[in-house]
Amino acid sequence: MRTNSKDIMDKISIKYSDIVAAQQAMKGITKTTGLQATKSFSKMANANIYLKLENLQTTGSFKVRGAYNKISHLSTDERQRPVVAASAGNHAQGVAYSSSRLGLQSTIFMPTFTPPLKVLATRSYGANVVLSGDSFDDAFAASQEYCKEHNATYIHPFNDPLVIAGQGVVGLEIFAQLPEVDVVLVPIGGGGLISGMAIALKEMNPNIKVIGVEAEQAASMFESRRNKRIVALNQVNTIADGIAVKRPGDLTFNIIQRYVDDIVKVSEAEIAHATYLLLQRGKLLAEPSGVTGLAAAISGRCSIEGKNVVPVISGGNINMSLLEQIVEQGMTQEGLRATIRVVIPDQAGQLRRIIGVLERLKANIQDITHNRSTSNVTVGHVLTQFTINLQDKAQLDIIAHELAEIGLPCEVAQ
Amino acid sequence: MRTNSKDIMDKISIKYSDIVAAQQAMKGITKTTGLQATKSFSKMANANIYLKLENLQTTGSFKVRGAYNKISHLSTDERQRPVVAASAGNHAQGVAYSSSRLGLQSTIFMPTFTPPLKVLATRSYGANVVLSGDSFDDAFAASQEYCKEHNATYIHPFNDPLVIAGQGVVGLEIFAQLPEVDVVLVPIGGGGLISGMAIALKEMNPNIKVIGVEAEQAASMFESRRNKRIVALNQVNTIADGIAVKRPGDLTFNIIQRYVDDIVKVSEAEIAHATYLLLQRGKLLAEPSGVTGLAAAISGRCSIEGKNVVPVISGGNINMSLLEQIVEQGMTQEGLRATIRVVIPDQAGQLRRIIGVLERLKANIQDITHNRSTSNVTVGHVLTQFTINLQDKAQLDIIAHELAEIGLPCEVAQ
Repeated sequence: MRTNSKDIMDKISIKYSDIVAAQQAMKGITKTTGLQATKSFSKMANANIYLKLENLQTTGSFKVRGAYNKISHLSTDERQRPVVAASAGNHAQGVAYSSSRLGLQSTIFMPTFTPPLKVLATRSYGANVVLSGDSFDDAFAASQEYCKEHNATYIHPFNDPLVIAGQGVVGLEIFAQLPEVDVVLVPIGGGGLISGMAIALKEMNPNIKVIGVEAEQAASMFESRRNKRIVALNQVNTIADGIAVKRPGDLTFNIIQRYVDDIVKVSEAEIAHATYLLLQRGKLLAEPSGVTGLAAAISGRCSIEGKNVVPVISGGNINMSLLEQIVEQGMTQEGLRATIRVVIPDQAGQLRRIIGVLERLKANIQDITHNRSTSNVTVGHVLTQFTINLQDKAQLDIIAHELAEIGLPCEVAQ
Repeated sequence: MRTNSKDIMDKISIKYSDIVAAQQAMKGITKTTGLQATKSFSKMANANIYLKLENLQTTGSFKVRGAYNKISHLSTDERQRPVVAASAGNHAQGVAYSSSRLGLQSTIFMPTFTPPLKVLATRSYGANVVLSGDSFDDAFAASQEYCKEHNATYIHPFNDPLVIAGQGVVGLEIFAQLPEVDVVLVPIGGGGLISGMAIALKEMNPNIKVIGVEAEQAASMFESRRNKRIVALNQVNTIADGIAVKRPGDLTFNIIQRYVDDIVKVSEAEIAHATYLLLQRGKLLAEPSGVTGLAAAISGRCSIEGKNVVPVISGGNINMSLLEQIVEQGMTQEGLRATIRVVIPDQAGQLRRIIGVLERLKANIQDITHNRSTSNVTVGHVLTQFTINLQDKAQLDIIAHELAEIGLPCEVAQ
């Protein structure tokens, strides 16, 4: 039997007092994270930007709040049985850490492709990790089977009133830290964080705008809202893996329909660039899903001019090799790195002439390749390629001009 | 005429009240930075570690505090004349920002090799930047000449009582945030930060241990302390460029002799690894000089067992290409990345066999080179090299074993 919206809201109504109780419950377990004012991002967004630093939360994301609130409410009976979750990410660490703090053993199902650091971190918090299946859906299926077999308690990552109440504490903290907040920008995956925050903030001040942000390529809540019913996507494909959710929960969907003012989308490029800028300017590491709110603010995806705006930086658990790519791309976009190709006559002294120009113009060489056996170069010539670190975009133009002047024109790689 | 220590301390005595006044002066200009408790680093150091986040300070380092305090004290007469500094780093940004906030024009002399981001940042804070000379000493000489010519006011980066009083505010904040602090670990370059902090903290509680940390390859204060007189080094050579100071100031030397409990040294490898760990575990970006205190804590360079310890993360302005190298090296050290070389017979199918093993064992390929023209490989063979991303060190052993099993033994690159 399908329940309709009204039934759900009546049945599972999360009250403001549940969130206050959650805040009490997690004292000494989770952190009250900082709210960081930032001049650089305020300038870019033409608003007063304050970052809510859930990337500095215990376990590296807000997820521990909901998990702890849920698990701390388990009955004496439920505490005798295993605690189970299926997650390739932050929910896993939240459940693992919370269970350990409460003296319970957790078993976490993860797909086999899960980034090594997340597996290690989850184990280090005391969980039993089971790597199972080639997709999240497979790992989830395995977890459900395990739950049946062992009569275990499954902890849902978002579609649970106690989890939602726990995430809502982020809203309480923001209001205490900045009572004059006008807008919060909150990443949406399953919608647990924004649901809890919206209930908390709208109770305190109904004029506070609560805006959700999704990745364009994983916009299941956006589509559901547009269709006024839950829509499941066939596939999601985004670097923001923490919010790559195919199907919103019915509980979160209904709360969002009632309390959230708007949902906006950001592109992959905007997410990657915001991750880079947060690191380079803000000195803070976040995972791609964690910066979607900030990306929306600085990409003009919502009208916030002159307002006091709080993007929630929801998590910081990023794979280091993905970070390397983001930094590399960010440097290239800012004109701090470029790759140029020069075809030179295969004669002694030619390579030195190019290097002479680069040295004189203070371009720092990162990488050189010198390739004689490329078929698309005239015989008697060599294709050379230089990756260089630059001061700014103008410097590249000067280098290209000077190389052309000495008869060695370059092509800039895209 | 050379002044002796006693003269200096009598002449320029910095009082606790000067630091309190500095705190008042910088209200609304600089931030009260967070003090971040951290489980990961507490575990590594076997102590309770709280990070003082001056990397999140306005301009990206504590330097703005001293600069602002100094410049805000300039006389009406001095304010008519240019404000000048020589710096390749954070002092430059501190002076630039502070001058702008006070409506003054600053001129900053930087060596021509200064990292682009620091030049851009300094200009963006409103300074006139002059790139001059191939070394810091040359840029400094140019700044002195300019000062004479234009009757300008030179802002010293550390050897000035008002600058020291400004930096001391970091000590006041830590004590307010954690009155039960036992030990602070403070990077030493010229010694301005630790001088101010020591005066502040020892006044509040003389039992608080104030320990300075220098890079082994730039340990001018350590050497001076050992010799009980100021020692100038011929050269300094460290990735911690922010604390690469050849000669301590007489003022800071004397304050440190009186108030600082100990100075310890950390190696280049320890600095690089602490920068990596702070990013990967702590989600915070710092420059190498900014993590020396943390490096000392987790490398067992001082005895802090069970104590409440505050390493000051003094700045976050790091060159992105240096960061890339640090991340790369950190991943390799943690066993998350490795490069293996396999010499294979030059026959179709051989390369595919290696890739088959890597795929089956879930090693993610980062980079491949396939080189037929290497002189140290037997004719009829090819040298292949794979850079791979791994789950942990154990995985590499399994890969090496499996490759040997199929007759393609590999060598692990160091």
